[in-house]
Amino acid sequence: MKIGIIGGGSIGLLFSYYLSLRNEVSIYTRTQDQADLINEHGLHLVKGGIEQAPVLVTAAPIQEWSGNEDLTVVAVKQYQLADLITEIKVKAKGPILFLQNGYGHIKLLSELATTEVYVGSIEHGAVRENGYTVQHNGIGVTRTAVFKGEAGLLREITTNAPSGFPFFLESDFKEMLIKKLVVNSVINPLTAILKVKNGELIHNPFFFEIFKQLFQECAHVLELPNQEQYFQNLMTVCEKTANNHSSMYKDIENGRQTEIDAILGYLLELSRSKNIKAPLIHNYYQCIKGKEHEREGA
Amino acid sequence: MKIGIIGGGSIGLLFSYYLSLRNEVSIYTRTQDQADLINEHGLHLVKGGIEQAPVLVTAAPIQEWSGNEDLTVVAVKQYQLADLITEIKVKAKGPILFLQNGYGHIKLLSELATTEVYVGSIEHGAVRENGYTVQHNGIGVTRTAVFKGEAGLLREITTNAPSGFPFFLESDFKEMLIKKLVVNSVINPLTAILKVKNGELIHNPFFFEIFKQLFQECAHVLELPNQEQYFQNLMTVCEKTANNHSSMYKDIENGRQTEIDAILGYLLELSRSKNIKAPLIHNYYQCIKGKEHEREGA
Repeated sequence: MKIGIIGGGSIGLLFSYYLSLRNEVSIYTRTQDQADLINEHGLHLVKGGIEQAPVLVTAAPIQEWSGNEDLTVVAVKQYQLADLITEIKVKAKGPILFLQNGYGHIKLLSELATTEVYVGSIEHGAVRENGYTVQHNGIGVTRTAVFKGEAGLLREITTNAPSGFPFFLESDFKEMLIKKLVVNSVINPLTAILKVKNGELIHNPFFFEIFKQLFQECAHVLELPNQEQYFQNLMTVCEKTANNHSSMYKDIENGRQTEIDAILGYLLELSRSKNIKAPLIHNYYQCIKGKEHEREGA
Repeated sequence: MKIGIIGGGSIGLLFSYYLSLRNEVSIYTRTQDQADLINEHGLHLVKGGIEQAPVLVTAAPIQEWSGNEDLTVVAVKQYQLADLITEIKVKAKGPILFLQNGYGHIKLLSELATTEVYVGSIEHGAVRENGYTVQHNGIGVTRTAVFKGEAGLLREITTNAPSGFPFFLESDFKEMLIKKLVVNSVINPLTAILKVKNGELIHNPFFFEIFKQLFQECAHVLELPNQEQYFQNLMTVCEKTANNHSSMYKDIENGRQTEIDAILGYLLELSRSKNIKAPLIHNYYQCIKGKEHEREGA
């Protein structure tokens, strides 16, 4: 099928690479420069340190996206979505899959006129090496779920997934996104501020105390129906990624904007609207915003 | 007068240097090696980057302290006091001045039989360069107050203080120590975890939010009678030391034990005994303990 992928960051490049193995992919980038690079070099993937065979995809700046593909995958950060959503609303005709972290963007999706709207949650680790090369460091899965409409196309993607890049179809989009939100809310800010790898949060007994308390606050604010299950999932992710640095850790280290607003910012707003005290959520939100502010001041 | 100083750390060396200018000082160190070094080289002071004239003091290992001086100054960290207090109880005859941070050691002082017990609060910045050399980087004052007995000897010290090393006599030992405790409780852990200089806590608007919230918790747990006054003092210290790295920042950077137990550890215990929720105090206590634990694991 024809797939349009919006976004030339690590996730956009990763999806373009793998999906192009069995589909006709067009990638839409923010800059003409990046589109030129991809058209010139093809898309490159480095997996476990080994350069894979490059693939050919069509690249163009985002203005040229017409919404005519069989499926559109929106692979920009949540904080970039607000600027794009009007254009997407106007042009989107077919099914569309949103890959943002957090839950705050869900309210934007209700406004889309297109019949099929899907959401996804990514458990891969990927780093953009340059405009046309992505490193696939953490081999994981992509979970998807229906936000609105029929699951038909998601089933097709799941069945036709290339080896090494599996898709799972989940039944409850909210549960799927909230599970990821909880993981991101605890692991990302703590590792970024304490400057540790993911595993230290459970192996260092003092950090583990904070880990549990921050989880408790998130669970309370989100009114999780089955806390134990979410906590187990959080522990499992932390153990599986014990030797990794979280994306927020790396964003802070490299002076980049983080996804804190999509993650703890969403929970902070929710706690205020529900009038629930959330001192640790507030604290780590301010810590990360303060770190981002340092960069702006520099 | 004859003054005995217990402790060969930065504060012990600093006090020995300045007090020896007008008194006969004996310094008691943990190791025989350090005592030998001081006896051989004299005591050296570097002030504003400039080496001052060395002074001669008598140095001996702490076992040789007999408690016979006119005044004894105890200049060890609070966490080292528990191991020393029995010996001090047995040997101390004359007035004794304790220079520890925090408030947890106060209960130990009630057990002393000696008539005059004083406490002090130091606003100098000092770094030990080697066993016999101390850098006097932040020129401040030493506040003292009577814990028990008459103020006579403190008045003498205050009047005879050498230039550049003033002493103030305060009327309320508790208020004096608590003021310092509040300053240490907010500035030390936040700067050590956020890895910033003191001034960033008030100049970065996001960090300033945390700064205010942590102060609020400390004020609540300590049931401060006049919060505004303590907050103003905290702000003043932060502004005056804006370009400095706090002692806890440096302890963490250099993999040394911190004074967290004397500072937030005391407040945490107090909050538990009073059944007051103190999520930020708990959080930053765990952060620092976790950082200390990293070092032990390494």
